Amino acid sequence: MINLQGIIPPLPTSFHENEKLYLEKIRENIGSLLKHEITGIVVLGSNGEFVLLSEGEKEKIYATAREAIPPGKLMIAGTGGQSTLETIRLTRLAARQEADAALVLNPFYYKGMMTPEVLIRHYHDVAEASTIPIIIYNMPSNSGVDMNASTILRIASHPNIIGIKDSDGNIVKMGEVIRKGKDDFQVLAGSAGFLLPALVIGARGGIMALANIFPRKCIEIMQNFKEDNLDNARKIQQSIIPLNTAITKRWGIPALKAAMDHLGLYGGPVRRPLMALDEKKKEMLLRLLDTFREYY
Amino acid sequence: MINLQGIIPPLPTSFHENEKLYLEKIRENIGSLLKHEITGIVVLGSNGEFVLLSEGEKEKIYATAREAIPPGKLMIAGTGGQSTLETIRLTRLAARQEADAALVLNPFYYKGMMTPEVLIRHYHDVAEASTIPIIIYNMPSNSGVDMNASTILRIASHPNIIGIKDSDGNIVKMGEVIRKGKDDFQVLAGSAGFLLPALVIGARGGIMALANIFPRKCIEIMQNFKEDNLDNARKIQQSIIPLNTAITKRWGIPALKAAMDHLGLYGGPVRRPLMALDEKKKEMLLRLLDTFREYY
Amino acid sequence: MINLQGIIPPLPTSFHENEKLYLEKIRENIGSLLKHEITGIVVLGSNGEFVLLSEGEKEKIYATAREAIPPGKLMIAGTGGQSTLETIRLTRLAARQEADAALVLNPFYYKGMMTPEVLIRHYHDVAEASTIPIIIYNMPSNSGVDMNASTILRIASHPNIIGIKDSDGNIVKMGEVIRKGKDDFQVLAGSAGFLLPALVIGARGGIMALANIFPRKCIEIMQNFKEDNLDNARKIQQSIIPLNTAITKRWGIPALKAAMDHLGLYGGPVRRPLMALDEKKKEMLLRLLDTFREYY
Amino acid sequence: MINLQGIIPPLPTSFHENEKLYLEKIRENIGSLLKHEITGIVVLGSNGEFVLLSEGEKEKIYATAREAIPPGKLMIAGTGGQSTLETIRLTRLAARQEADAALVLNPFYYKGMMTPEVLIRHYHDVAEASTIPIIIYNMPSNSGVDMNASTILRIASHPNIIGIKDSDGNIVKMGEVIRKGKDDFQVLAGSAGFLLPALVIGARGGIMALANIFPRKCIEIMQNFKEDNLDNARKIQQSIIPLNTAITKRWGIPALKAAMDHLGLYGGPVRRPLMALDEKKKEMLLRLLDTFREYY
Repeated sequence: MINLQGIIPPLPTSFHENEKLYLEKIRENIGSLLKHEITGIVVLGSNGEFVLLSEGEKEKIYATAREAIPPGKLMIAGTGGQSTLETIRLTRLAARQEADAALVLNPFYYKGMMTPEVLIRHYHDVAEASTIPIIIYNMPSNSGVDMNASTILRIASHPNIIGIKDSDGNIVKMGEVIRKGKDDFQVLAGSAGFLLPALVIGARGGIMALANIFPRKCIEIMQNFKEDNLDNARKIQQSIIPLNTAITKRWGIPALKAAMDHLGLYGGPVRRPLMALDEKKKEMLLRLLDTFREYY
Repeated sequence: MINLQGIIPPLPTSFHENEKLYLEKIRENIGSLLKHEITGIVVLGSNGEFVLLSEGEKEKIYATAREAIPPGKLMIAGTGGQSTLETIRLTRLAARQEADAALVLNPFYYKGMMTPEVLIRHYHDVAEASTIPIIIYNMPSNSGVDMNASTILRIASHPNIIGIKDSDGNIVKMGEVIRKGKDDFQVLAGSAGFLLPALVIGARGGIMALANIFPRKCIEIMQNFKEDNLDNARKIQQSIIPLNTAITKRWGIPALKAAMDHLGLYGGPVRRPLMALDEKKKEMLLRLLDTFREYY
Repeated sequence: MINLQGIIPPLPTSFHENEKLYLEKIRENIGSLLKHEITGIVVLGSNGEFVLLSEGEKEKIYATAREAIPPGKLMIAGTGGQSTLETIRLTRLAARQEADAALVLNPFYYKGMMTPEVLIRHYHDVAEASTIPIIIYNMPSNSGVDMNASTILRIASHPNIIGIKDSDGNIVKMGEVIRKGKDDFQVLAGSAGFLLPALVIGARGGIMALANIFPRKCIEIMQNFKEDNLDNARKIQQSIIPLNTAITKRWGIPALKAAMDHLGLYGGPVRRPLMALDEKKKEMLLRLLDTFREYY
Repeated sequence: MINLQGIIPPLPTSFHENEKLYLEKIRENIGSLLKHEITGIVVLGSNGEFVLLSEGEKEKIYATAREAIPPGKLMIAGTGGQSTLETIRLTRLAARQEADAALVLNPFYYKGMMTPEVLIRHYHDVAEASTIPIIIYNMPSNSGVDMNASTILRIASHPNIIGIKDSDGNIVKMGEVIRKGKDDFQVLAGSAGFLLPALVIGARGGIMALANIFPRKCIEIMQNFKEDNLDNARKIQQSIIPLNTAITKRWGIPALKAAMDHLGLYGGPVRRPLMALDEKKKEMLLRLLDTFREYY
């Protein structure tokens, strides 16, 4: 059984100025992240602009990431697609590139038809067809479909489904999934904004954008929590909220990439239709970042 | 400065079968609750069916509650209305009946016009006109208006506004309000479903429907948290979620009242348009309740 | 059977600068409107700030309106409240003041409990208790509760429920209600923005804010439609959309009142928490209004 | 300039039982539809399950459709993708297969980042790169992004953008786009549920699922409208609403395909995750269909 405990950054995808993949920089960014005590890395999550990439590009990224991530660290591959066939195909591509697990966003375009039955069959078909374990990915603010506790629990009944990244921030739902889920079902916070509350209710860790730029601080929240230093954990947790809001809700990937550029990683351009931050917002962001100097 | 720390049940309003107020039973229910180590009682919150009562009825309830609640325990009165004038009038009625504080839901009918400016002026006008301190009440699932952290913080800048009951369950927002709010600003969880996560992020306690039937368990979560027994706190927190969901989200006030009847308190009928639980749902609820026998 | 066919302005409520009722101005505004071929007038609809008024104030407005509206023209009274008791009480007050019909918004605060059964029983209880006919009022953008066609049809099965004002703009739902409703069920558009499309699908007319300032133009749409001058009807319909959007969705009652002041009617102040338009918006509004000079 | 006036069915994509493309059946269905006075056919709209298909499959469908659709009838190709690059690539594939126009759904996954600026640049980049004209496709109930009138008008300022399919049913917005749009901008209703109201406000016709099974009735609405037989038009319009609701909102593509099978066309299976109607729903649908016997 794969152990997801800890902090796992969902890596942005690096592009050249002409929007082509910049695999070299993906490799370098992974190298920088691995200097920290992270559990592994997700490629092709929402922060990885996965919906903007072709299947061929995804395969290259799986391969690049696996080369850069040593066996002791997890390589988790985003493989969700709108059709069951596409999701199976991508999951198999990832398995062939030796991903440790697949992070599978639910299909969502036909919202009115995404009944529990449809979602459960989809996940179970994918889990059956996959040689690597599946992590559910619930991301209602992007997908517009919010899987409730009961649906998640029914999906999780398949032995090849080992956990969930929940980006919704609904702590009550998390608590219910943790309590009723199978013993080894692993719940991960999907955003640094609620890491500590998630841990306190039983989550194992988190897959969070902020871990790309401040992995150390995310790890410190976990360590303080484990050592019962709740006051310290709370202080760090509260302190990162404004920055986390900026790079997730308010400005998103362009802000995350601008922050990475500022901190000596490679952020680079976003792929269209996404747009770089305008100068004014970028300045606000960098000013905000500079108040976190001691976090680098 | 009034100290809101601890558990505060928001009392349902008791009616006779003919929908008339049953003040005697309100008094008795308060008496039963006061046997527990609660901090105080809210009358005329959402669970108190406050929108279904006339101004005259509200005044009677303020008076009845104050008689039944001794000085050492807080009597908090729901006084929010759609107009600033009505809210001021109700708050003054409550003050005349010696309420310790007023819990003020924001106006919300004209959603499109409820800009931050409008909401801030409303709360500041009420706070100015009131001799008792004001607690903000954010309840987006009923009101359809969700005040964000920035608006709440600007409202809280008035010295006569001392805290907030947030029923939204957005832990990230709570964390931001706690961090940026004035030092003595008191954040309370608005539902038992996220009490422990709220405490861990800095909340002082909670105003929660479940405290009407299981005050002891809510208090135990707080005590275990204070004594750093996080595992115990988590176990209780997780265990109460299904029941809490039943009496808040799924079935609401009719379920809360049916549970109270079952546990030897007075629940009694709801006022129309609300409807009693049908027999099938009631049976499901009581079966669920009976799994919590040791919590009474 | 009361005939609702035609254009019916929902009158704003006039206030003095100190927020007190200004009944004289209500009377004068009614006088001005009655110079046009309108079918009647609604008092205490959403534009009448009905949620900001006490029961005593509502009674005075019913009386004032009835004095000012001659028997040949309809006086329709908004009487919806959150409780069934309050709604019955207000409807009887209106009947005693000789209102021709009551416009009843559904209760909505306890959104999760507003099942079809609850809503149907509420309306049927009110219809039973009322000596004057009831018009359903569906206003989801304010109430947050959207009654669907099936619920509306079941409510409409009561003989004392004669029509609906639907402010939702869902033309498909309107068509379904018209087709399946009893023969004499009268559907009215709730906004000037979709008057012509509503007429073409079988609506009888409309209760619309814009009719307070441009009654003549609303009436012309109806007349052109009746006389099969669809091109003219369409031209007027299209032309009024921007102004209608400004005084309904974008800026609401403060804009409607500012427009009335500009056109020689009495708009006057709004009641708090509502705020007057700031100078910039007011200027934009008046500039927009001046492009409609020939409509006065 | 391509003339979109009239009725245009958005063809479902035919699959074998093993989910593989069944191009033969696509050809046959097109042949059946072309017996009616339709203006053309859309392939790979929402009803065409376009998000469930690979790029290679899409190309085959473009080619198959063009072969089956003679030059006098429009072949419109759905080419929208999440990235600008993918959308351009698909649009060029469609152009190479001699599509007459491309129907382009907006990108929508990163909802918070889909500002007017982002959407306008996306559409203009696609329009610049395309040799065939672009039709905007607004489908908020699936995409979760609703482009407002102002954004649509700014997108439409590009000379290679000739129209919009609006599936939202917001008649007020349609009226505003028609009034303020360039003279030759062509607005099409995106559902049969509001075809007549859309025509009366100035729309040119519609792209609507129902036209796959009842093209004759959709055409009759248009003809009656053109000949000023509004009563007839209204009768047909009202009559089709329940069936249209069933195959669009309530049950969607599986219902449309079941209906096609029942009427002698090829519906066939849906692709996973979509699920066939269960027996009970299918029976309800066919019973409903049988009340429309005279419409075949």
